[in-house]
Amino acid sequence: MSQYWSAVVHGLTPYVPGEQPRLPNLIKLNTNENPYGPSPKVLEALREQVADSLKLYPDPTSAALRQAIAQACGVTVAQVFVGNGSDEVLAHTFQALLNHEGPLLYPDITYSFYPVYCGLYGVTGREVPLDEQFRIRIDDYIQATDAGAVIFPNPNAPTGIPLPLSEIERLLKARPDMPVVVDEAYVDFGAESAIKLVPHYPNLLVVHTLSKSRSLAGLRAGYAIGNVALIEALNRVKDSFNSYPLDRFAQAGAAAAMADTAYFEHTRQAVIRTREHLVAGLNAMGFEVLPSAANFVFARHTQRDGADLTAALRARSIIVRHFKNPARIAPFMRITIGTDEQCQALLDALKEILA
Amino acid sequence: MSQYWSAVVHGLTPYVPGEQPRLPNLIKLNTNENPYGPSPKVLEALREQVADSLKLYPDPTSAALRQAIAQACGVTVAQVFVGNGSDEVLAHTFQALLNHEGPLLYPDITYSFYPVYCGLYGVTGREVPLDEQFRIRIDDYIQATDAGAVIFPNPNAPTGIPLPLSEIERLLKARPDMPVVVDEAYVDFGAESAIKLVPHYPNLLVVHTLSKSRSLAGLRAGYAIGNVALIEALNRVKDSFNSYPLDRFAQAGAAAAMADTAYFEHTRQAVIRTREHLVAGLNAMGFEVLPSAANFVFARHTQRDGADLTAALRARSIIVRHFKNPARIAPFMRITIGTDEQCQALLDALKEILA
Repeated sequence: MSQYWSAVVHGLTPYVPGEQPRLPNLIKLNTNENPYGPSPKVLEALREQVADSLKLYPDPTSAALRQAIAQACGVTVAQVFVGNGSDEVLAHTFQALLNHEGPLLYPDITYSFYPVYCGLYGVTGREVPLDEQFRIRIDDYIQATDAGAVIFPNPNAPTGIPLPLSEIERLLKARPDMPVVVDEAYVDFGAESAIKLVPHYPNLLVVHTLSKSRSLAGLRAGYAIGNVALIEALNRVKDSFNSYPLDRFAQAGAAAAMADTAYFEHTRQAVIRTREHLVAGLNAMGFEVLPSAANFVFARHTQRDGADLTAALRARSIIVRHFKNPARIAPFMRITIGTDEQCQALLDALKEILA
Repeated sequence: MSQYWSAVVHGLTPYVPGEQPRLPNLIKLNTNENPYGPSPKVLEALREQVADSLKLYPDPTSAALRQAIAQACGVTVAQVFVGNGSDEVLAHTFQALLNHEGPLLYPDITYSFYPVYCGLYGVTGREVPLDEQFRIRIDDYIQATDAGAVIFPNPNAPTGIPLPLSEIERLLKARPDMPVVVDEAYVDFGAESAIKLVPHYPNLLVVHTLSKSRSLAGLRAGYAIGNVALIEALNRVKDSFNSYPLDRFAQAGAAAAMADTAYFEHTRQAVIRTREHLVAGLNAMGFEVLPSAANFVFARHTQRDGADLTAALRARSIIVRHFKNPARIAPFMRITIGTDEQCQALLDALKEILA
């Protein structure tokens, strides 16, 4: 607390990212990173950027990257916005598109950065409870006539549960008066993207990241797809904040990742296969696992506490993520899908712990 | 304009960065980049980052980079904040430290991003005119008893004129009630840094970039040095905005750049020498050149208009920057210091144009 702080700072409760421990031989299943490294073509593109040209500013419009994204997503370049990871894209989205007179609605159990953004930009947020099966009930959003905007992840986090595209379209159709943001950080692991709805609904913005399905958490690139008017709002805010949020590496590496469809397909299918094995193993051990379309599962044991199990795994050098709040999810662990070997090691450790 | 925009978006006038044309054989003296590439040690550190580990998030606290900056600047790690270029550092500073009841003061001729940040965060800005010699008059800031905060670059941009440290200290001493931000993007080219005052003045924040004197415009890294309470405010805002604004390349490359003192000294002295030659050449041709301590000069010809000369240079594939507004600086060109060869080419072209 200081007399020099702007008023907004006093009220902030910053987001706490999953820890990034630097321990050897750790099995790190806590921050939903991809167990497979980036495509060799990405590494090649990055190598080319190690050059004298780093003395020059990068392209402030990230034109080549936006072109690669447009191509991969089947949209026009003018429908693409890029940022320094999807967290920066979301931050700009909260400021540019989600601050209205009516409250912003989001699930009570969801990505915990949303209320933080609300605090940063003075957006009034309102939590909408998930149903008893931890599912988003789209009717709750349709019927909230005072709402100014909506945001939710699909699949939701940390549950991993996907929403059918027909449900999202039902919301878009019923509420053309408000922006609807679908945060698809994990969509490539089994849910259906709303990008195909963008041409039909001017109030839809879809947000993606390259940190998960493109194996580039260390590079910081994310994007949004939407109607050109929504993209213009994001560009206005971005150009009033930082002209060059993506450095030369991020622009080149992300463009190469979007172009390498074969590698992307191969690794995401591998993650999906491993998830199915992991779920079967967990079920066999007495865990309830929510139906996941993400690169993580959300699981609780019928007899044992989530915090206890997380600590016991940690003692065996396996890190998963546990959320104390809200109380309803405290029994769960969020487990990132690693390699087959990592997931087997997790199952072996749990067997030991539960014995 | 769209019904889906937040109110703030309608009023924004985004910053327009200097153009980044992709033409061959261009002499690019328009965005104050360093004519020399980054240190070989930086390139080596960057090469090591081209690896499988890009699948993992970078360190959210940029600890190694902050350590390297602390070492280079003679401060503690807790006094260092890092961001995605000094533009992001400045954006967070406007939101975290410069939004007070009294207006934020800055020079009427200065970095044109300041009023843009004010618009983005609802900060009330008030321009303070430079004197007749385009100098900052520190007494104007001391005597503005209603002011909530102050920011100015030292050396100022686009004039290049430095302010003696004693003047800055006079302000800090007279106005301990308000934050004072000194934006030292260009300080390494001949002005005196206020970092040494940080231990004595809890209201002082000093902002630096690695885009200019460290030859890393393409990598996006900047930092702020100040009292731990000021740094805490910046971290709270950063952690409410984006956990990982610096990717693995930016963290590793910037740390290596801060550590290579010899290369830094060598290249900045080369730029200073070239500047002195360029100034002499321009003077000999009838230009008035403001006394510059930066890696650019601000020059006007007694007979010829700044916009005309800029266009004539452009026709000869030499790009400099011209500002139409305010009217008082329209006669000037801002010329980045290039290599000796580039500056000679500029002088030759001007000779032709003026003939």
